[in-house]
Amino acid sequence: MTTSDLEHLISKRAAARYSSHFSQNTAPAHIKAHPEPLSLGGGMPHYGFFPVESIAVHLTDAPFSDKKLETLKADSKSKNPVIIPKVTDRPDDIIDLKNGLQYSYIQGLKPLLLFLKEFVQKVYPPAYNDWEVVLNNGAGNGLNKVCDLFLDPGDVVLVEEFTFTPFLQSVENCGGIPIPIKLDFQGKGLDYNHLKYELENWEILHPGLPLPKFLYTIPTGQNPTGLTQPLELRKKIYKLAEKFDFGILEDDPYGYLTLPPYKDVKSGKFDVDAPVTVDNFVKELAPSYLTIDTSKRVVRVETFSKVFAPGLRLGYIIANKSFIKAINNYSNISTRSPSGPSQFLVNNVIQHLGGIDGWLEWIIKVRREYIIRRNVMLDALYASDAYKKNLITVIDPDAGMFITVVINYDKSKYTPAEYKQLTSKNLFYKTIENGVAVVHGPNMAFDNLADEHCNFVRLTIASPPDHATITEATNRFTKSVEELFEEIEKT
Amino acid sequence: MTTSDLEHLISKRAAARYSSHFSQNTAPAHIKAHPEPLSLGGGMPHYGFFPVESIAVHLTDAPFSDKKLETLKADSKSKNPVIIPKVTDRPDDIIDLKNGLQYSYIQGLKPLLLFLKEFVQKVYPPAYNDWEVVLNNGAGNGLNKVCDLFLDPGDVVLVEEFTFTPFLQSVENCGGIPIPIKLDFQGKGLDYNHLKYELENWEILHPGLPLPKFLYTIPTGQNPTGLTQPLELRKKIYKLAEKFDFGILEDDPYGYLTLPPYKDVKSGKFDVDAPVTVDNFVKELAPSYLTIDTSKRVVRVETFSKVFAPGLRLGYIIANKSFIKAINNYSNISTRSPSGPSQFLVNNVIQHLGGIDGWLEWIIKVRREYIIRRNVMLDALYASDAYKKNLITVIDPDAGMFITVVINYDKSKYTPAEYKQLTSKNLFYKTIENGVAVVHGPNMAFDNLADEHCNFVRLTIASPPDHATITEATNRFTKSVEELFEEIEKT
Repeated sequence: MTTSDLEHLISKRAAARYSSHFSQNTAPAHIKAHPEPLSLGGGMPHYGFFPVESIAVHLTDAPFSDKKLETLKADSKSKNPVIIPKVTDRPDDIIDLKNGLQYSYIQGLKPLLLFLKEFVQKVYPPAYNDWEVVLNNGAGNGLNKVCDLFLDPGDVVLVEEFTFTPFLQSVENCGGIPIPIKLDFQGKGLDYNHLKYELENWEILHPGLPLPKFLYTIPTGQNPTGLTQPLELRKKIYKLAEKFDFGILEDDPYGYLTLPPYKDVKSGKFDVDAPVTVDNFVKELAPSYLTIDTSKRVVRVETFSKVFAPGLRLGYIIANKSFIKAINNYSNISTRSPSGPSQFLVNNVIQHLGGIDGWLEWIIKVRREYIIRRNVMLDALYASDAYKKNLITVIDPDAGMFITVVINYDKSKYTPAEYKQLTSKNLFYKTIENGVAVVHGPNMAFDNLADEHCNFVRLTIASPPDHATITEATNRFTKSVEELFEEIEKT
Repeated sequence: MTTSDLEHLISKRAAARYSSHFSQNTAPAHIKAHPEPLSLGGGMPHYGFFPVESIAVHLTDAPFSDKKLETLKADSKSKNPVIIPKVTDRPDDIIDLKNGLQYSYIQGLKPLLLFLKEFVQKVYPPAYNDWEVVLNNGAGNGLNKVCDLFLDPGDVVLVEEFTFTPFLQSVENCGGIPIPIKLDFQGKGLDYNHLKYELENWEILHPGLPLPKFLYTIPTGQNPTGLTQPLELRKKIYKLAEKFDFGILEDDPYGYLTLPPYKDVKSGKFDVDAPVTVDNFVKELAPSYLTIDTSKRVVRVETFSKVFAPGLRLGYIIANKSFIKAINNYSNISTRSPSGPSQFLVNNVIQHLGGIDGWLEWIIKVRREYIIRRNVMLDALYASDAYKKNLITVIDPDAGMFITVVINYDKSKYTPAEYKQLTSKNLFYKTIENGVAVVHGPNMAFDNLADEHCNFVRLTIASPPDHATITEATNRFTKSVEELFEEIEKT
């Protein structure tokens, strides 16, 4: 175990960057600075040039609250509009228009960074002290920046066999080489034994390739499978990371959407309408890899997309200081700072809700809706003939917005290539006819290695407008499966 | 002249990218699609999950309008808040929260793109038809994306000897090699003769280097010099670009801030309070290189930073279709789409102001304030002893937010290295003591080639809060120059 910042894992490209092209002029001690200096330096338009005087943000009480704005009571604290003034008298908490619409810090605006530092410390405290947090332009941008951080051409990154495949383009863009690691569908995500086997036999299995620079994992509510790694598994994977000296990129967009088991909700053991305390909610979250990160090798990528809104294009990264510095140097030439309006919208709404606790209370409301929706979809799946005839196996997700349904082809009758085709072609046509869009397993697959498992589809509970639509769309899907099997049996 | 999209100028890196990793499944003709399909596909949270119900944006009448919000009359159209609803009934014009807070198109949201297409067509119509526009995360991000578009390692880019130096980091990041071209301080920006000489003697002057891939120029209100290239000069430079087959990156953050000559404003020949029609304003803008771009080699980078607000991190790029496609493929892995809140703020405010004409009317008001400020600063400069004693030469800018002041060192007494030192050290100390921050010429310089010209400072009229502060700060600056010369003469 080391207490360094693992600078040797930083790519040569990232390490070669520096923070600013402008020379830093400083005056020697004998020069007595004027007590009230004025600036004719940087080309920042004074906020008097901005066309906006103030912004009022009207909030909803809860997801899918259908109350019209005019019916809201003026005395309901959380419903009054959040006013974003041109200049605030609470600059430590509130991002005003003066700062929010101005050129600003690469790493993000201070009130939001301060909030995030406290939030991280409360919700998943890293196992070391001098970690840092930086805002970015959403998780997709965050993942790209982490690829840039680690990967020189020819470097290797380990990825889950089914994953958020757009990530692979960022790997390719850095000249990186992705190598897939199996998922354990019956277990809880990443297949530890396969990972260990790969690493211990690296030179034989991947002759000429260097050992991996980092592992990319979605450990909680994995996309697309919905699986969540238990803490014990994370500890074992982390030990491998230390032994073979690679970083861990923890992508966790779904972590706050923890879903209690379907049967517990059905039986009333878990009451969706019972109040949930913030502390209990936090306690039940799957622990981030950061909480066991004694050797500073974890980079956590977060996003406001799933619990606030995706269009913000706002997320954040937590990592050790050296990694964050390298990321900032990349931001400096690529994105610069994230959108000010996105930052003041998120920050000031969170402050209005009451800071950390108020924000977690909103997240609990979002999670409640996902629990209900998950049960609505599972109700429909379990009630279907497709399920009763064992044509499908349903994976009850631990977290997130996806339900994976495995299509039970007779594997003795078909080759992997054949049932891959059955899913992405024959079943696809049935869903077109029946009018339901789903994501077919092969589209989320890394590679051919995945073929033996790619007989599944991913269904989302996030996008339908209401519960009836979830039921109707799920019925269309199971009907498609039933028709597919009728067709298969005929031939 | 060619009518192709000059794909051969696209870097190998950019050309190798593709638009999506997801396989594009399509159904054959005999599959009859359901008339009302539902989606369980993409993981987009329904807008019912967003915590914001609506947003009201309160505008100001004009820059630095000090009217308080509560004094505004409800019947004043442009002062009523701009309401951004959850769902609009005018989706062609208005970006609502349903779309503005959702995952969205890489190139930007449709209402704003439509506006920009019309705006470009009216204000600086390109010389060919099938140009495209794409939104990005501010001009800094735009410049970085254009470097990626053109530059493979070892490729050459021409830059002005004094320039927006952060650009050079984006060049380096692509492995590009910047080569400086002189500015003609007595003329109107880029030194045509030097450019021509460099190109015609390329192999002798730069043995082993390939001919340049593109020229980076700030043709209007050049940063830092404030110089503006006349149309005739642009045409001559464009001819060289065609002859030597390179692209032109036109960076134009200041183009709308056209400044009539100081003396015309002083004499009343130009009346800052006289109404300016939108058509006259447009007619007097320096014409973009796009307007003469018959061979599709110009990439124009624009920003909302100077005429709306920098914190938006929102700008746009205009170029031919092939270039835009390559830029989109890069955005797809790096930034994704720009911030939705930034987009709906800009779009809906512009629509509220009345579209193109209303937006240009706002810009005219911004420009008016810059004209007044420019005159306030020149008043102070011309009234100074430093000016009267010929210690400084003032460049009256044609556009923008900067005034360049040349420090008239006795060039027979000092080497370029010495007066570079006098500016960035001795004068710098004087400004620290007198309490005024300025940008010293050497900080904006590309390189040693610039030394013979770097005896200047850049003053901005953008950031001071009011006119009195401009005067006071300018006086502190001229006092610093006077003290410097007293010191020089003593030694």
